[in-house]
Amino acid sequence: MSKILVFGHKNPDTDTIASAIAFDYYLEKLGYDSEAVALGEPNEETAYALEHFNIEAPRIIETAANEVSQVALVDHNEPQQSVNDIKDVEVTYVIDHHRINGFETAHPLYYRAEPIGSTASVLYKMFEEKDFDIPSAVAGMMLSAIISDTLLLKSPTTTQEDEKIAYRLAKIAEVNLEEYGLDLLKAGTNLSSKSAEELLNSDSKVFDMHGHQVQIAQINTVDFADVTSRKEEIIEAVNATLINSDVELFVVLVTDILENNSFAYVVGQNMDAVETAFQQQVFDQEIQLPGVVSRKKQIVPQLTDALEG
Amino acid sequence: MSKILVFGHKNPDTDTIASAIAFDYYLEKLGYDSEAVALGEPNEETAYALEHFNIEAPRIIETAANEVSQVALVDHNEPQQSVNDIKDVEVTYVIDHHRINGFETAHPLYYRAEPIGSTASVLYKMFEEKDFDIPSAVAGMMLSAIISDTLLLKSPTTTQEDEKIAYRLAKIAEVNLEEYGLDLLKAGTNLSSKSAEELLNSDSKVFDMHGHQVQIAQINTVDFADVTSRKEEIIEAVNATLINSDVELFVVLVTDILENNSFAYVVGQNMDAVETAFQQQVFDQEIQLPGVVSRKKQIVPQLTDALEG
Repeated sequence: MSKILVFGHKNPDTDTIASAIAFDYYLEKLGYDSEAVALGEPNEETAYALEHFNIEAPRIIETAANEVSQVALVDHNEPQQSVNDIKDVEVTYVIDHHRINGFETAHPLYYRAEPIGSTASVLYKMFEEKDFDIPSAVAGMMLSAIISDTLLLKSPTTTQEDEKIAYRLAKIAEVNLEEYGLDLLKAGTNLSSKSAEELLNSDSKVFDMHGHQVQIAQINTVDFADVTSRKEEIIEAVNATLINSDVELFVVLVTDILENNSFAYVVGQNMDAVETAFQQQVFDQEIQLPGVVSRKKQIVPQLTDALEG
Repeated sequence: MSKILVFGHKNPDTDTIASAIAFDYYLEKLGYDSEAVALGEPNEETAYALEHFNIEAPRIIETAANEVSQVALVDHNEPQQSVNDIKDVEVTYVIDHHRINGFETAHPLYYRAEPIGSTASVLYKMFEEKDFDIPSAVAGMMLSAIISDTLLLKSPTTTQEDEKIAYRLAKIAEVNLEEYGLDLLKAGTNLSSKSAEELLNSDSKVFDMHGHQVQIAQINTVDFADVTSRKEEIIEAVNATLINSDVELFVVLVTDILENNSFAYVVGQNMDAVETAFQQQVFDQEIQLPGVVSRKKQIVPQLTDALEG
């Protein structure tokens, strides 16, 4: 059997890296020759988890077709979020927890998505169905993925299943969920060491919304002032990425992970759609998003609807 | 909780009807208010199975949004194969075994597809994972679906899982797999009673292949002569459907289910793509397809590739 590369989305977050590692392990248990790789460097939060559980960061690839003919996608399906030459390889597996958009295959495939807190939670269920043991370090990474995606089980994307799975994984990984969880989240909020470009890229995705290309970056913080003090620099960096890009609208979602609250900087076209989507006015390229923490559940569907027609 | 309608594709086959019935049952076990419906009358094969297991044919719907806001799709995902107003409802579940094409959601959803012989086989695994019992009549319908889609476990789409599942379902349904299977398949090959239009519609799907609309009807028979004697009438009926249609190419796949062999009538544009796809020449609107029995595995990917670029 020829080799399968397993990877998550561009600008990888903890769920993407952890799910690639976990699904690679799962495929090998099924008898496949597979390798977990990544489409970029781990962010600081992910690096903290990798170090804590003593796992090496996956090798970074730019293209896939030069190495393999088949790939497995985790934590994403939209082609613009995937490897650049995604059209030149066959996708045989997708494990995900996002909307489906622009994803197409010529052949039947294995596709497993559930509307739950993290891709790692879906994978946990798959391990359980097959009665596969999860090694402690892999469990630690999967737990980190759930903590990261659900902001320690507080995001509205969190389900009872995620909660139950997180406690089981914490046991296998031998960590205290709350204590480790807060340390992990804080590891991702050290913003002062990062350039504005790094802030924008560390968790950024492009979405096709009825033909409009919309980029949404999310910055987690424990203090809004760490971001607001750099507003000018951030907006300038956004403007720079918009040159020579087909992105029409760029949303920088800034989330206080302790208060579970957000605001956003918005740059580009379609400000009226932004205001319609969130029932708030944009002042000076800024919009308040009280109670919002989830890009997937509280930003993407609303903006997609507002950009229709 | 508001009601969910569960349905398969247009021109329903046995897998589509049986999977709607089985998934409706599954959703009700999960506590949902759901109803299995259909986008057309059962064909003769499906009618035979429904009568054998004493199950009523699902109610036929034309549109969904007038009744519900959420739907579950089984045995398909491509919008042109679905209910006409699919864009006006939210798809919350898909259970399938086909390629993914043109399917889009704004929200995360439950999507479960596997590259195996029938949607009913995927559903069987889901029942097993939840430890849900399958009532004898539902098991009989699921078995009929596997027999129909795999031509009694002989199509190249058949996996070891389908085989194992079929034997288990036959036990629950209290039928002899081979005997019941042959009776079921033969029930679908009574062609003489059908008009050419009925022959074309009983198992017909439209595929978007790189922007080309391709319709592929499959007619099962135990004797090619039952079809070849009506060639002129069939081609005429195809030509009639092509008027006022955006379908460019119509393939009528005729399969001998005892010999596991096919030929096809091809009408419309892109004959060169047809010849490239199957490495055979088209003579007098007819192409030989030795060893072909599966539209999904032996026709759609090859034609899709040939129509690219």
